[in-house]
Amino acid sequence: MRIGIVGGTGKEGLGLGARWAVAGHEVIIGSRDAERARTKAAELLAGVSAARVSGAANKDAVATADLVVLTVPANGLAATLPELVEACRGKIVVSTVVPLTFGGGRLFTPPPEGSSAEQAQALLGPEARVVAAFHHIAAHELAAGDHDIDCDLLLCGGDAEAKRVVTELGASMGLRAVDVGALTNAGPLEGITAILATINRRYKLKNSGIKITGL
Amino acid sequence: MRIGIVGGTGKEGLGLGARWAVAGHEVIIGSRDAERARTKAAELLAGVSAARVSGAANKDAVATADLVVLTVPANGLAATLPELVEACRGKIVVSTVVPLTFGGGRLFTPPPEGSSAEQAQALLGPEARVVAAFHHIAAHELAAGDHDIDCDLLLCGGDAEAKRVVTELGASMGLRAVDVGALTNAGPLEGITAILATINRRYKLKNSGIKITGL
Repeated sequence: MRIGIVGGTGKEGLGLGARWAVAGHEVIIGSRDAERARTKAAELLAGVSAARVSGAANKDAVATADLVVLTVPANGLAATLPELVEACRGKIVVSTVVPLTFGGGRLFTPPPEGSSAEQAQALLGPEARVVAAFHHIAAHELAAGDHDIDCDLLLCGGDAEAKRVVTELGASMGLRAVDVGALTNAGPLEGITAILATINRRYKLKNSGIKITGL
Repeated sequence: MRIGIVGGTGKEGLGLGARWAVAGHEVIIGSRDAERARTKAAELLAGVSAARVSGAANKDAVATADLVVLTVPANGLAATLPELVEACRGKIVVSTVVPLTFGGGRLFTPPPEGSSAEQAQALLGPEARVVAAFHHIAAHELAAGDHDIDCDLLLCGGDAEAKRVVTELGASMGLRAVDVGALTNAGPLEGITAILATINRRYKLKNSGIKITGL
């Protein structure tokens, strides 16, 4: 699959890109700054043998992708997505975005839509097939390719076929997917990242994760 | 410890009460209807040998308790808590309350305060030592006393000593506690119950739970 990662030059985007490149997918790292995207893609390529990785402006990364992944900061959605509406039409758009506000006050600060994924859906229009997923896989774990990731892939969205594809995408990197329903559950999913970020800070970890028991 | 469970005649309250009674705590099941509380307490006693369990009106259950637990429905907080303000002053108040709205729309519907725990804190005033905890331990698991509960006890709150006591309360029933910070993280904690409820429905389970990995 050809995967375009919007805002893919951060730790989470590069970590996911590396895992998917290793799994045999083609990865296009997107950025507002195409040059920066190409530089980061080259760095990623240097660490992954025989992979297909390139860099491009966000819009170009999306245009040629089979599946789009959003790894932009939550406060960048409103500026980033409007120019991607056409290119995202009919495509699966995976939102990994978490609305966290660091600085000592309330950490989980979802937008009026209820979640960043629902905000993305509103900005991209109803024809984008938004799935909320991959919020809980620590960038630190993604970067460490030497062991399996001890975390479930919790995902939600309104398009069952899109969720099936994302489930396979997770399986290609060794993750067990758990379907947690409609996109209206994206807020609670994104909120878990606030909990994991707090646990990381309190317990001096970099890689806390979550597993569903009883399945 | 003497534990007063406000709204304790439901499955969650009775399940927690049974576990704590078995662990040697004294449990007072509270209800708006003192008679109903006494009936439920008697039923609980019948299943737990050598336990100290009684029933009382909510206000009386709280008055004599060392530690208060709220297991009322989220939409019952505003009606239930005002009469308990005095009795809760200085006490640890554990909120297990989750603001879920069943019926097909958005499941997680937190109040303007951000969470039911923060609403409880606002209603009880700053001298109640509110800890949000026990949201994820399935009532079905609590009732099944024949095996350990495969779920972490995630808790948050502003009072470190109160969190220590709740951690011990969890340990007395075999749970590992994970401190997830201030009460402003209660919304994300409560939201996890929306996820687990959805998983239970989709996967036809009664006892999904959550474990933090990487600790």
